[in-house]
Amino acid sequence: MKARLRKYDPPNSPTSVGWTKAFTWRLTPPDTPWQLECGGHLNEVTVEYETYGELSPARDNAILIAHALSGDAHVAGWDRDASDTHRPWRKNKPGWWDAVVGPGKAIDTRTFFVICANVLGGCYGTTGPRSICPETGRRYGLSFPKVTVGDWVRLQARLLDHLGIERLHGVVGGSLGGQQAIEWAMAFPERVARCIVLAASPRLSAQGLAFNAVGRYSIMNDPLFLNGDYEDGQGPDAGLAAARMLAHITYLSESGMHQKFGRRRRVAHGPKSGFGVEFEVESYLEYQGRAFVERFDADAYLYITRAMDYYDCAESWGGGDLATACRRVRAEMLIVSFSSDWLYPRAQCRDFAIHLCRAGRPVTYVDVPSNLGHDAFLVETDAVGRLISAFFNPARKGWSI
Amino acid sequence: MKARLRKYDPPNSPTSVGWTKAFTWRLTPPDTPWQLECGGHLNEVTVEYETYGELSPARDNAILIAHALSGDAHVAGWDRDASDTHRPWRKNKPGWWDAVVGPGKAIDTRTFFVICANVLGGCYGTTGPRSICPETGRRYGLSFPKVTVGDWVRLQARLLDHLGIERLHGVVGGSLGGQQAIEWAMAFPERVARCIVLAASPRLSAQGLAFNAVGRYSIMNDPLFLNGDYEDGQGPDAGLAAARMLAHITYLSESGMHQKFGRRRRVAHGPKSGFGVEFEVESYLEYQGRAFVERFDADAYLYITRAMDYYDCAESWGGGDLATACRRVRAEMLIVSFSSDWLYPRAQCRDFAIHLCRAGRPVTYVDVPSNLGHDAFLVETDAVGRLISAFFNPARKGWSI
Repeated sequence: MKARLRKYDPPNSPTSVGWTKAFTWRLTPPDTPWQLECGGHLNEVTVEYETYGELSPARDNAILIAHALSGDAHVAGWDRDASDTHRPWRKNKPGWWDAVVGPGKAIDTRTFFVICANVLGGCYGTTGPRSICPETGRRYGLSFPKVTVGDWVRLQARLLDHLGIERLHGVVGGSLGGQQAIEWAMAFPERVARCIVLAASPRLSAQGLAFNAVGRYSIMNDPLFLNGDYEDGQGPDAGLAAARMLAHITYLSESGMHQKFGRRRRVAHGPKSGFGVEFEVESYLEYQGRAFVERFDADAYLYITRAMDYYDCAESWGGGDLATACRRVRAEMLIVSFSSDWLYPRAQCRDFAIHLCRAGRPVTYVDVPSNLGHDAFLVETDAVGRLISAFFNPARKGWSI
Repeated sequence: MKARLRKYDPPNSPTSVGWTKAFTWRLTPPDTPWQLECGGHLNEVTVEYETYGELSPARDNAILIAHALSGDAHVAGWDRDASDTHRPWRKNKPGWWDAVVGPGKAIDTRTFFVICANVLGGCYGTTGPRSICPETGRRYGLSFPKVTVGDWVRLQARLLDHLGIERLHGVVGGSLGGQQAIEWAMAFPERVARCIVLAASPRLSAQGLAFNAVGRYSIMNDPLFLNGDYEDGQGPDAGLAAARMLAHITYLSESGMHQKFGRRRRVAHGPKSGFGVEFEVESYLEYQGRAFVERFDADAYLYITRAMDYYDCAESWGGGDLATACRRVRAEMLIVSFSSDWLYPRAQCRDFAIHLCRAGRPVTYVDVPSNLGHDAFLVETDAVGRLISAFFNPARKGWSI
């Protein structure tokens, strides 16, 4: 399937959610100290989130979007607060899923009230390792407690309480966001009516663990890492860039890279000495690495990849047995894999769907043919949009789409 | 296919080549200055190589083995010169292909005279970036000229002249060694009678280029790299280890890693903070990284991976057309892929065999079923040994095995 990248809608377009502004919400006692799955706790927790559309009087039209590793709550529209100094990377482009979320789009903000919250342990406003620890008055760094996908979902559920939403019309996420969607269906089965899992399986493979490990190794062995206590703007950029470059390979497919870059060179013949960029694919990766360090934090990368490593819904909800975990689910499930995704391979996604099916749960499984690898969940917006739109359609009866 | 790792033979075993000692050979004028494919030259070139068995009076029983990225000339037997301070990693184990090379083994040293030379630009005795540049009296570092697979093969051919060998009974290599075998068949078609290419294709994919690029990025961004001019023992170990860890993932298969490590943990529950080794697969990779820096050099890693990137026999010998390049071949060819190899995938190896076949060249193609990934060429010694033994058998008539 050829990806047709939709041109971004400008803020004043009728299909754009327009200018957006993030909300900030602080937990207060008795919610604090907020206990975490790994045993740690946080005395102060702030959540940054965005919403689009209007909550219906019956409060039954809410859709929660869970963002992936490097994503954020700014899903759609144009960040009103972005400037040359504040999140400058947002200045000239809309949210990461603007092609899917907006008036008249797949997740139609004329119909739905859409919520997305930045995850705990990240670097986009929700409390994380770069936040100030109230006990010490200094940044947490690696003293920040470990966080898990379960922690994220439990905090999102608490946010929904705060917003007065008892039950979600639907939850949707891709990759690590897809694992949050799975967690929603298992941790809060009565609170979610429809659940869409894109490019995610119940747990990461050994190979996926390995890639994350090498990425963290690069960060932690960068001498500027300083055991996580680097100053702002003086962090382990080279290590973080290497981690991102490596991860980017896992987001594309072999055939997609072949098609996009092949062995094309930027210079016809390499220099006699030196090891600068010669092939197109090298140039692309270096650009991705450079761009990432402008907008992401190394400590957050460690925490979030570890949460990705840890996630295993069979372990959390089935004592190690996926079938048992699947029996908890009450939501209608849509599992979408992408044919060339090798980070969360389609065989694993299909296996999850089969487990849900055997558990007697309503599940639809779709494998989208694409050579864009794991990235397809973000890029194949036409195919993904059609699936989401059909599945979340309130007029739809039953669970087949 | 289950790998059956042969126990190493001790030096005094009748199936071991026993204690070995490397030879050193220096080029002299008019061979020097030795011109290189990328345009550079070297005023002094030393080649370190090992041989096993005896050259027959007719000089027609020579087999050249080409080593892979991190391999060396010490193919079989026990290095007599290894000590606590000199190549200590060789002290307690024999050469890297000891299971295949020796009296009565697949490459039978009672029948064949076996040669393997360390590649130019490496770190095992043949001139490389850590050698002393005669013009400056200092180590070359990155002033060492770029080297190519073509350069390696041309130097090996010159070594054969020196040894009085006009024509090889056979050449064999795996991975980057397999690309040297291909180069032999195309650069010196009259000098090689049989050619075995294991786990190698005519060129590296975009994905392979990408992995090499990230590995080099890690090395070159390690602050101890010092633009290649680090002191011995004070090199960019962390960067080199990261490069090796990453490469190691590409040497295994997803299913092989799943089988070997799965998501097993070394500690039942991770610590509340910190990012040390928790999963078995992390421990394995860190060990591989640590062990590699003990025996390999960062500058050499840059040069050798770049040679791997550059290699494209269609470009070198067919003006970009593989079919044209294949028509140069005169040797009987055996192409062996491994089913789960994703660095040099079987589809690419098979495609090469098809091109040879269409060019009317005698070729046998075998895909060995294995879940050991690219590493299979080193580890599946039973299957590989049987193929080599049959193919190199002097009594065999015709080219089907």
